[in-house]
Amino acid sequence: MKIVNTPTPPYYAVIFTAKSSANQNGYEEMAVSMLELAKQQPGFLGAESVDDTLEITISYWESLEAIQAWKTNADHQEAQKYGREKWYTAYKIRIAKVEREYSFEYEK
Amino acid sequence: MKIVNTPTPPYYAVIFTAKSSANQNGYEEMAVSMLELAKQQPGFLGAESVDDTLEITISYWESLEAIQAWKTNADHQEAQKYGREKWYTAYKIRIAKVEREYSFEYEK
Repeated sequence: MKIVNTPTPPYYAVIFTAKSSANQNGYEEMAVSMLELAKQQPGFLGAESVDDTLEITISYWESLEAIQAWKTNADHQEAQKYGREKWYTAYKIRIAKVEREYSFEYEK
Repeated sequence: MKIVNTPTPPYYAVIFTAKSSANQNGYEEMAVSMLELAKQQPGFLGAESVDDTLEITISYWESLEAIQAWKTNADHQEAQKYGREKWYTAYKIRIAKVEREYSFEYEK
């Protein structure tokens, strides 16, 4: 997993935090296929994801319109349905406008 | 780890994403102590954290002023210094204004 090189703010972050259920059947395949699909969406800038007892996935987008289009994508809607029915006991989605960013990189 | 119950937007999210270095000496203790300290800061609303090959920690704050005060806290500055010198090869910090949120919870 890499830290995403996002453009100069402002842009948007979708912060997805979820508690997994016992049933993770088909989750991995769906996660891979949703990321592939998201990459084809206009305005998608990248995503960062870590999965342990809590899953956190942050995806970055150019605009609210791009996020809305992704939300209503038919395949994505089916994935959301599986998420609620099978994979997650709870989740929260926060739409946030990134206003500033700063970085550190170790000098080799 | 729990999903944080944040208030009605707007509020702020600090998205911290980092690649860990080989040297994790003292990291765990510092992470625990920084979370304790953050909890005592005015305007702190909670944090979510997952740590794998990539660390993602999101902390939530009432205002930009609260974030600024935490950034300049002396103990926190020392932790930041250790982070750059020892624990991380790279990190990115994004300051974002949460404008909307929605949740799902499985009905028992």
